[in-house]
Amino acid sequence: MRRRGKNHDPSHGTANHGVYKRLGLHSVSFNPTMSWKDLAAAKKQAQLEKIPQEWLIKDLPTDKNVVDFPKKSGLLSDLDLEITESSVATLLQNLASSKWSSVQVTTSFSKRAIIAHQLVNCLTEIFLDRALARAKELDEHLARTGKVVGPLHGLPVSLKDQVNIKGIESTMGYIAWIGKPVEKSAILVDILEESGAVLFVKTNVPQTLMWVETHNLIFGRTSNPHNRTLTSGGSSGGEGALIALKGSPLGLGSDIGGSVRVPAGFCGIYGFRPSYHRIPYSGAANSLEGQDSVNSVFGPLSQSLDGLTTVVKTVLGKQPWLRDAHVIRKQWSEEEYALSDHGGKGGKLCFAIMWDDGITKPDPPIRRGLELTKKALLAAGHEVIDWKPYKQAEIGLNTFAIWSAGSGDDYRSVTQLSGEPLIGSMAPDATGNEVRPVFGKPLSAYELWQVQKKKRDLRQEYLNHWSATVAQTSTGRPVDAVITPVAPYASAPHGLNRNLFYTVWCNALDYPSVIIPTGAKVDPVLDVKQPRTEFFSPMPFDKDIYERYTPELYEDAPIPIQVVGRTMEDEAVLAMSKVVDDALRSNL
Amino acid sequence: MRRRGKNHDPSHGTANHGVYKRLGLHSVSFNPTMSWKDLAAAKKQAQLEKIPQEWLIKDLPTDKNVVDFPKKSGLLSDLDLEITESSVATLLQNLASSKWSSVQVTTSFSKRAIIAHQLVNCLTEIFLDRALARAKELDEHLARTGKVVGPLHGLPVSLKDQVNIKGIESTMGYIAWIGKPVEKSAILVDILEESGAVLFVKTNVPQTLMWVETHNLIFGRTSNPHNRTLTSGGSSGGEGALIALKGSPLGLGSDIGGSVRVPAGFCGIYGFRPSYHRIPYSGAANSLEGQDSVNSVFGPLSQSLDGLTTVVKTVLGKQPWLRDAHVIRKQWSEEEYALSDHGGKGGKLCFAIMWDDGITKPDPPIRRGLELTKKALLAAGHEVIDWKPYKQAEIGLNTFAIWSAGSGDDYRSVTQLSGEPLIGSMAPDATGNEVRPVFGKPLSAYELWQVQKKKRDLRQEYLNHWSATVAQTSTGRPVDAVITPVAPYASAPHGLNRNLFYTVWCNALDYPSVIIPTGAKVDPVLDVKQPRTEFFSPMPFDKDIYERYTPELYEDAPIPIQVVGRTMEDEAVLAMSKVVDDALRSNL
Repeated sequence: MRRRGKNHDPSHGTANHGVYKRLGLHSVSFNPTMSWKDLAAAKKQAQLEKIPQEWLIKDLPTDKNVVDFPKKSGLLSDLDLEITESSVATLLQNLASSKWSSVQVTTSFSKRAIIAHQLVNCLTEIFLDRALARAKELDEHLARTGKVVGPLHGLPVSLKDQVNIKGIESTMGYIAWIGKPVEKSAILVDILEESGAVLFVKTNVPQTLMWVETHNLIFGRTSNPHNRTLTSGGSSGGEGALIALKGSPLGLGSDIGGSVRVPAGFCGIYGFRPSYHRIPYSGAANSLEGQDSVNSVFGPLSQSLDGLTTVVKTVLGKQPWLRDAHVIRKQWSEEEYALSDHGGKGGKLCFAIMWDDGITKPDPPIRRGLELTKKALLAAGHEVIDWKPYKQAEIGLNTFAIWSAGSGDDYRSVTQLSGEPLIGSMAPDATGNEVRPVFGKPLSAYELWQVQKKKRDLRQEYLNHWSATVAQTSTGRPVDAVITPVAPYASAPHGLNRNLFYTVWCNALDYPSVIIPTGAKVDPVLDVKQPRTEFFSPMPFDKDIYERYTPELYEDAPIPIQVVGRTMEDEAVLAMSKVVDDALRSNL
Repeated sequence: MRRRGKNHDPSHGTANHGVYKRLGLHSVSFNPTMSWKDLAAAKKQAQLEKIPQEWLIKDLPTDKNVVDFPKKSGLLSDLDLEITESSVATLLQNLASSKWSSVQVTTSFSKRAIIAHQLVNCLTEIFLDRALARAKELDEHLARTGKVVGPLHGLPVSLKDQVNIKGIESTMGYIAWIGKPVEKSAILVDILEESGAVLFVKTNVPQTLMWVETHNLIFGRTSNPHNRTLTSGGSSGGEGALIALKGSPLGLGSDIGGSVRVPAGFCGIYGFRPSYHRIPYSGAANSLEGQDSVNSVFGPLSQSLDGLTTVVKTVLGKQPWLRDAHVIRKQWSEEEYALSDHGGKGGKLCFAIMWDDGITKPDPPIRRGLELTKKALLAAGHEVIDWKPYKQAEIGLNTFAIWSAGSGDDYRSVTQLSGEPLIGSMAPDATGNEVRPVFGKPLSAYELWQVQKKKRDLRQEYLNHWSATVAQTSTGRPVDAVITPVAPYASAPHGLNRNLFYTVWCNALDYPSVIIPTGAKVDPVLDVKQPRTEFFSPMPFDKDIYERYTPELYEDAPIPIQVVGRTMEDEAVLAMSKVVDDALRSNL
């Protein structure tokens, strides 16, 4: 594994020379005469130079909603559009049958990714030449042997910036990490490439990764393509925005508190947070490294649910535990995907809806999304009951306390290398002097253990809470899956996404969870603000969020739901998400 | 889960009243007039009163080696002897066929456990009445229904003191925890009882659990039945000594650095450290709670290898992940037990022997044990190569640093409740003022994360090291299992077992490992001390241990080996241990 080293001396070695040169920074390294701002500007300029001139948008739109702009841009051919609007399943089928070459598919997605980037600023590293060379190899292999190299043969796949690819930078939005192409790919990258994926772009993240918005001092802010006054969510916000604009069929993000699911939800696409230690993480860059209690996991985002399932199945099929010491030795289970523990395929399931978490009552559109889902599931013959929240605030605050135990030192260990400020607010009018909001304080190891002990107890209590629902269902089983909001709102204006309680409990409890777009969008007629005088306390979110809400503020924002399963039920939760998704599609 | 609470007020409530009364401590609780010594003495006295008079040994032997004493004691009938000297498989078969009643089997083991206790001081809680009542119920159930209640029907099982049983104390050797019968059984206890086990005694541990010897200020010291001048090992030393004397066919201990394996090895029995999170831990007492990085695991000790396999298979068969939030959802795999990932059943395996770990060269008998094993495996048609140690010292020191990050506060949070001193030496001549030896210091959470980050890297490096052995084997696979010493010595004089490097690396790397007695014992003729002038450095163990060695010091001590598999290969490592065990038996 590459020791990327926050303590790495950035001025050493010759490997960086070429990159500095490309950045116009000949033989320059970090020194007192070079400001972090100049470094960031040079890096951003180098990124701009990667954009092919012929794909530049001449008249950039000023609309809030740009989700349909790529279609109308004139830059995409009919074939480009057909390709980029296909599901992962269709793409893989047409790639495998040679109906579409990988070079063609990669070109189409590359074009659309570059268009997307100009609209919402979603990319970090752009390496289309490398991608096309790989696509060509794959096409030749298929032509020569008649065989695909693996289940992802020829498919363009985007990666969150932190996923290391040999020879490419992983700045993760940190200025100190500019100019250091990594020496070794993450295990996940090796597996994706062996499976036939064509990696072509990396995507934007917030500085530190530990925000549910996406903004940093190198690449700037990623916006929500459905309404650019809103955040794309984060920290995999570059992925969310890119895929929503169909600039990539499938991407890998990471999730430690909602970082796959929040952008998937806000951007109206599918996303999956797998259980701890199923998808290999070794060899990737990360924040809070060594924090072994609430683990970050890699998970896919896609325009189609089949994309999520395909990539998880593919990665597990490569026996990642033989390469990554932290991956659990457990095969993909077709049996569990056939819902062997949930009455078998096609059987009646019992879903429970968490209408609110006792911390915030969701805005009207979010409530409507849950109602739509309930109606669709009932129409499909399933049972739907109410989910009683259980210590949701305590669970979230416990996780924040674990992160905060050492996060300040972690962030500063990198920012101090370049002198860049630690971002304290994601608001567009932030002055840079804002203090980062925290829910906890630095702790001693022993104090941290007490918080982690509490977490263990909460996990056990929640399991008992779930198991006890057997008394409320007609299936003879406890609730099969829980359906919840992704956030109390459809998205948030930049700088105001400060509530991750609807996602973070799944990280604390290690519950696999899938984000599904209901297909509905915020609607001024249907989602009228209702009078309210009572609010959850003591946390201020409920009142703040209520007061902020108008349907106009969230114009065009998609309405997502979250489907939550029990620890290590990754296969089952993907299968049950298909049940939910099919029900929603057939009820629209 | 019961919150047993180190911060629990010991004087509260009425539930303790009866216990205090039984202890002769009517309405007494912790107060300045009651010294910790008085409390300890009263508890020990109460334990003595649990011993049936008719099972008292009249003339206690003075021999060092008492392993055969029970046979000659005159207290056991021929049937008692036949029963207590049977393997777990035979016991279960004869219990299921009603050849032996559970009442009979429980009585035989109870007698022998009480004899054992008088020889080596291995027990803590004794609850024979409860056990016999349960045995009677099981006998009646079998007579009535013709069916066993589960795979462990009628089998007496002993438990390390920390495993909570409703209504019984779990002092864990802490005086502050005297007089508090627990309110809820550990999930493991529920599962064992539902599977038909008859719990009858709990076994001794060191104060804090964090020693590889067994001594505390309530119950005192447990000795090695093969040579009572030596330690039984720890922390599951009560189990090791009890089972070696055949006072229990099967016990459950815990292992965070060798605590199942060291006593199994020193006492000449079988022991198994499973991978993290396969055997449920919820609801048990523990040390260093909330330390989520190097996890303690429960594992079995037994006179027979089949005992280990049976109990693991039984527990996993009860789907413990449905009850314990931390257990991995992974069934017992018959396929993996049939060595599907190791060339299939009966195929040629490649073992690698770690002759030394680069920290200490094992004493002559330990070396001989490895040589015997090599010879036996070669004779059975397997391949045996040398294992190259990899950063063994660094791995051990890293784990010690993780423990030490908060252990001092953890221990003191309990000892300060009663005023008992924190034991600083396990030597018989300790004055009580010794300072506990430590390998690390208290850390901040952020500093702890840096140590844990290093651990993650070491795990990944070790996996790569193991995978690379594919180039050295003739099987086309990397080494199937590694064979190592359990410790550099066969045991240690009381107070001198200070080296756990041969076991702790498996905890750090999460490698399942089985202890097998070679059948050989330390022999003054075969195990002559050899001249040596060069020693491993910088740690002092190698020279110290060399200088200490004489075959006479370790007279009659059994010689064990350890079989180590890869993370989550629990089934395979048990199966490969059977291969090793069969080879050793057929070569004796």
